Amino acid sequence: MAKVAVIGAGSWGTALAKVLHTNGSQVTVWSIVEAEIAMLRERHEHVDKLPGVKLPEDMEFTTDLKAAVEDKEYLILAVPSVFTRSTAKSMAPFVKAGQIIVCVAKGIEENTLMTLSDIVEEEVPAAEVAVMCGPSHAEEVGVGLPTTVVAGAKKRKVAEGVQDIFMNEVFRVYTSPDVLGMELGGSLKNVIALAAGMADGLGYGDNTKAALITRGIMEMSRLAIKMGAKAETLSGLTGIGDLIVTCESRHSRNRKAGMLIGQGYTMKQAMDEVKMVVEGVYSAKAAIALAKKYGVDMPIIEEVNCVLFEDKPAKEAVRELMMRDRRAEHSALEWEA
Amino acid sequence: MAKVAVIGAGSWGTALAKVLHTNGSQVTVWSIVEAEIAMLRERHEHVDKLPGVKLPEDMEFTTDLKAAVEDKEYLILAVPSVFTRSTAKSMAPFVKAGQIIVCVAKGIEENTLMTLSDIVEEEVPAAEVAVMCGPSHAEEVGVGLPTTVVAGAKKRKVAEGVQDIFMNEVFRVYTSPDVLGMELGGSLKNVIALAAGMADGLGYGDNTKAALITRGIMEMSRLAIKMGAKAETLSGLTGIGDLIVTCESRHSRNRKAGMLIGQGYTMKQAMDEVKMVVEGVYSAKAAIALAKKYGVDMPIIEEVNCVLFEDKPAKEAVRELMMRDRRAEHSALEWEA
Repeated sequence: MAKVAVIGAGSWGTALAKVLHTNGSQVTVWSIVEAEIAMLRERHEHVDKLPGVKLPEDMEFTTDLKAAVEDKEYLILAVPSVFTRSTAKSMAPFVKAGQIIVCVAKGIEENTLMTLSDIVEEEVPAAEVAVMCGPSHAEEVGVGLPTTVVAGAKKRKVAEGVQDIFMNEVFRVYTSPDVLGMELGGSLKNVIALAAGMADGLGYGDNTKAALITRGIMEMSRLAIKMGAKAETLSGLTGIGDLIVTCESRHSRNRKAGMLIGQGYTMKQAMDEVKMVVEGVYSAKAAIALAKKYGVDMPIIEEVNCVLFEDKPAKEAVRELMMRDRRAEHSALEWEA
Repeated sequence: MAKVAVIGAGSWGTALAKVLHTNGSQVTVWSIVEAEIAMLRERHEHVDKLPGVKLPEDMEFTTDLKAAVEDKEYLILAVPSVFTRSTAKSMAPFVKAGQIIVCVAKGIEENTLMTLSDIVEEEVPAAEVAVMCGPSHAEEVGVGLPTTVVAGAKKRKVAEGVQDIFMNEVFRVYTSPDVLGMELGGSLKNVIALAAGMADGLGYGDNTKAALITRGIMEMSRLAIKMGAKAETLSGLTGIGDLIVTCESRHSRNRKAGMLIGQGYTMKQAMDEVKMVVEGVYSAKAAIALAKKYGVDMPIIEEVNCVLFEDKPAKEAVRELMMRDRRAEHSALEWEA
């Protein structure tokens, strides 16, 4: 159907490569790590990051970025957010006008406060840039459990192209023009997931977590809307949907790191224990910087930063969130008398 | 602090009675069931519905509705929704002007499509009517886990009075004037929770459930806004917050009934197994009637009705939700080109 390269062979890149192949695309997977490519070629399975998910025999694996990029209609950029700029820079010389790069990682660059699609547009001006995200743990997509995501691009045609190559009976793809809203939702949610994990680690219940998620999406929305995103997006699959799955799922690394911190681990110890990249720890700093820049009140994200970087006990942070002044839930609504 | 009666000694009424007493109110609990009151008097614990939660020695328990109602500033109406009208009618002769009735159950009356506060206003015109709901499983409130709810009333003074008697360090109470939005959220969420439970029962994962919750709150919001509720309320604690806790928690009866149906039980068998009242089964019919009356598209609620009342297999219902036409997530957002 289409010629596609997946750039980055983590759990998400691997799961998406399988979806694309199932739908009839010719798929090449690239990784910078020689040993990872050797393992994928030999085992047709990512035994570390997506164990149990068999990849087809005719899927190609390479460490040659030029070969991976050339002649592909779609380039699915699936490296962790901290490697997005360097990888995009390396891809740039091989990308021709009209090739579509789909960012499927999430994050905000700490020093520039740019989203990943901003970074890719800056580094690879020849490409059309799209994003795809939503409530979608790789472990479940890999085994074909029903999942819904959103393909975002400023141009409808680009978003619909991404929808076409990914959509099937168990992987439902909506489209959206609000790329900024999608990316902010996808990044900020990891910080709220750390808070939800802390509540779990402290032994609090479902009531506490639902409150954190609800108040969390409100503060995420306040910031995102101020930055130009659409309210609908934060209420949708890439906003509240992705936040729910990240805060509730046993697959979530951000939640797991938060749980360990709630149980008394330091941030460093928690990150060592989880092993994989904990995006929320990076995004927490970026989020607080954005909150200051745009003058938005973000109490949960502030408390997460205090716990991560100022050794504030998680219990005290949650207690302070519960005991803020008594107030109306939505200050804009009008009373009768 | 205040003289309060809790009308209805289920798990929620019992948990709220304890919160009120902790905050210094003088609390009387009423039930129509002689054996229940005898057990509460003797054991100071609701051993069936809220086991392990000890109630204080100076809490009063009675089956005398007149004695329970008279001279109380607040009447917390905590009977199941199907008994709300009959209980309100019985209370009416004893209620004096200015007494505040707080509805804490959720539901929509099937034949009239009225909310519980509508019913109470009709049956007890002398009373001021308020509501209180949010993500709050009784089992967790009973043991003091941090919980947030919203007190709603058309008049600010009434809502703030309810906030005053309930709020403490682990039970945070916001206020809102959008009583209708709160009640619709609280009722419709039980239907979506049945769908989420079905997905769990079918062995689907966190991705599927997050999608159902997200698309579920969208269709709930479409209906509620058309009926005059505020969008903010559906995005808040009594909307998405309560929906999350109902779909995710092991304490949720609606979710449990849905799980059993997903595993192949009939609706009748599932209700027998869960034993307690499954509000969502009643609300499903009311919800579809409201959707028709207001001309709103509610695909998840339609499929739940087909499964409950037309023997449609749950698997087929979920498949049809996944395979609707490919489309934009939010049709109102504009594209660049």
